[in-house]
Amino acid sequence: MNELESRVRGTVHIVGAGLLGASVGLGLRERGVDVTLEDLSPTAVALAADYGAGRIREAGDPEPSVVVVATPPDVVADAVERALSEFPNAVVTDVASVKLAPYLELVRRGAPLKNYVGSHPMAGRERGGAIMARADLFTARPWVICRDRDTPAEALSLVEAIALDLGGVLTEMTPEEHDRSVGLVSHLPQVVSSLLAARLVSAEEQAIALAGAGLRDTTRIAASDPELWVQILGANREPVVALLEQFSADVAAFTAALRDADAPGAKRRVADLLASGGRGVGRIPGKHGSSERFITITVLIDDTPGELGRLLTELGELGINMEDLRLEHSPGAQIGFAEIAVLPEAAERAVADLTERGWRTL
Amino acid sequence: MNELESRVRGTVHIVGAGLLGASVGLGLRERGVDVTLEDLSPTAVALAADYGAGRIREAGDPEPSVVVVATPPDVVADAVERALSEFPNAVVTDVASVKLAPYLELVRRGAPLKNYVGSHPMAGRERGGAIMARADLFTARPWVICRDRDTPAEALSLVEAIALDLGGVLTEMTPEEHDRSVGLVSHLPQVVSSLLAARLVSAEEQAIALAGAGLRDTTRIAASDPELWVQILGANREPVVALLEQFSADVAAFTAALRDADAPGAKRRVADLLASGGRGVGRIPGKHGSSERFITITVLIDDTPGELGRLLTELGELGINMEDLRLEHSPGAQIGFAEIAVLPEAAERAVADLTERGWRTL
Repeated sequence: MNELESRVRGTVHIVGAGLLGASVGLGLRERGVDVTLEDLSPTAVALAADYGAGRIREAGDPEPSVVVVATPPDVVADAVERALSEFPNAVVTDVASVKLAPYLELVRRGAPLKNYVGSHPMAGRERGGAIMARADLFTARPWVICRDRDTPAEALSLVEAIALDLGGVLTEMTPEEHDRSVGLVSHLPQVVSSLLAARLVSAEEQAIALAGAGLRDTTRIAASDPELWVQILGANREPVVALLEQFSADVAAFTAALRDADAPGAKRRVADLLASGGRGVGRIPGKHGSSERFITITVLIDDTPGELGRLLTELGELGINMEDLRLEHSPGAQIGFAEIAVLPEAAERAVADLTERGWRTL
Repeated sequence: MNELESRVRGTVHIVGAGLLGASVGLGLRERGVDVTLEDLSPTAVALAADYGAGRIREAGDPEPSVVVVATPPDVVADAVERALSEFPNAVVTDVASVKLAPYLELVRRGAPLKNYVGSHPMAGRERGGAIMARADLFTARPWVICRDRDTPAEALSLVEAIALDLGGVLTEMTPEEHDRSVGLVSHLPQVVSSLLAARLVSAEEQAIALAGAGLRDTTRIAASDPELWVQILGANREPVVALLEQFSADVAAFTAALRDADAPGAKRRVADLLASGGRGVGRIPGKHGSSERFITITVLIDDTPGELGRLLTELGELGINMEDLRLEHSPGAQIGFAEIAVLPEAAERAVADLTERGWRTL
């Protein structure tokens, strides 16, 4: 019996056999934990069971130790309430991407919340469903835990043990902090990306033909499932509306400054808003491209097998840890670039050492 | 004498030795064309010459056959006018990212436009300067040609021959069509990305820590040079303001629908706008990330020095050439991902070989 298995001391029951539920199941099964599954769709639950995410729960099965609710957001409160009443001794958690609305709904209904710990693993894939599930979906991803003031330490630590064992990086927040945070880093970008992409619907073909990496990157997430997002945004309405209003005010200020770009100070306002964007993007951790926290070293590499490996092996030999790496080369080009982000204090020596070993850096 | 060389029948003179000018020079030199360079900055022109983009033009050099103006946008009209008057027999083109404003300015000044053909290769890199120049910068990129009604066929075909030989994909547009098109696929996304990223400047650290790939992708181009963008947007003010007004109306409609999401029809309006985004993004050719041309293999790597190097060395030993590589990891996580894009025919064997050597792939 390994550590997690001995902590759980029984069965983990998963309600909702979609991408997240099945991924939790796969991860726990890999760690030897007994997992049962249920889903409104007999097909979905059978599929998840076939993939090895657990066995289908049957009448007469003993009460689980932990219940993980992984339903769509709009029925999370129902499912949590039902689990708390059906399994009064189990610790109940959920993985919904909005935390305050379901919590307030549970309070409103007078549900016994002693054994409930809300949580949200920041993981997903572009397509949903058990067939996209992966045991390591949560590896190295933030996993937010929303404890209640009254949450017993034991219930909390059990949910935390599961999140940690599935590879998550724990962050504790209140439901309000969580919803405001995901509103900013996830929900606002989703809406902005969708509305930007919506401008392409009626665009001329010849304009679309000029699209480059900038448009592709800014609109990638606009391909997400609208039904799921109606639920998420509806459940996190207040923070998202507030963020959209602030964003909209910036758009209006920018448009006004650009329209009157020859008026005194207008060019400065345009530049300031663009520069704010640069400062904002610099705050994102693990950012591809330029970041304020790291220095990027560009190394020229021949586009032959093993050449990049040789470079990175030598970086390893020199004891340099890369914070980020991008490879850039054109189709058919004989040379490429490796852009390596390192901590500022390591940059100078890295360049000197690489140069000494014959690498050309920019 | 190859075909392009015989078409040019003389020297191509490049005004402005930055990223685009030096890349044109490198590409033409590779094809045996004689190239001269000038730049307001003696350092920049010497650097471009050192990189092999051409030789510095000297007093007494004969008149060039073609002049390529590759200056910053706000001095393009000046540089084109000067080239037309200094070299009355040369065909003059430019590579500026805005086409109507410089053209109208040239008309206003009464410049002799018979030998001028505006053009715009849709190529760039995150950082500028001759040191970032590449002979293949234009390979497979759209290259817009803005002919005038009165452009002689000979001048037009000479500019087209250069664009084609540098690898560009020719598209003919009027200056108005060009500016409206790049307004939509390049300038609007730039502004939206910058203003979205600007919302992060005052964000709480714990919110930023939850950032994922969606936020990173939507804000990547916000790191671009604000000074250059003030010029570009200022020169393409009317189309960009019109696009921002349409976008802003969508944001307002979306915000109103979300705010009153329980009113009749409001959820439908939210869903419709999100679904429009999906339709819009579906129109973009060659989607990013899930690039149609390559398959992405995700490999789990420990976040320790040398581990990524070891992986890539082994990929080299296996004879696999990567088309692209991205590294992703969360702050504080002990593990990260390397996303490796390979040709489809190489993917299956790569996964099998990596697994055999003990790597975990997703």
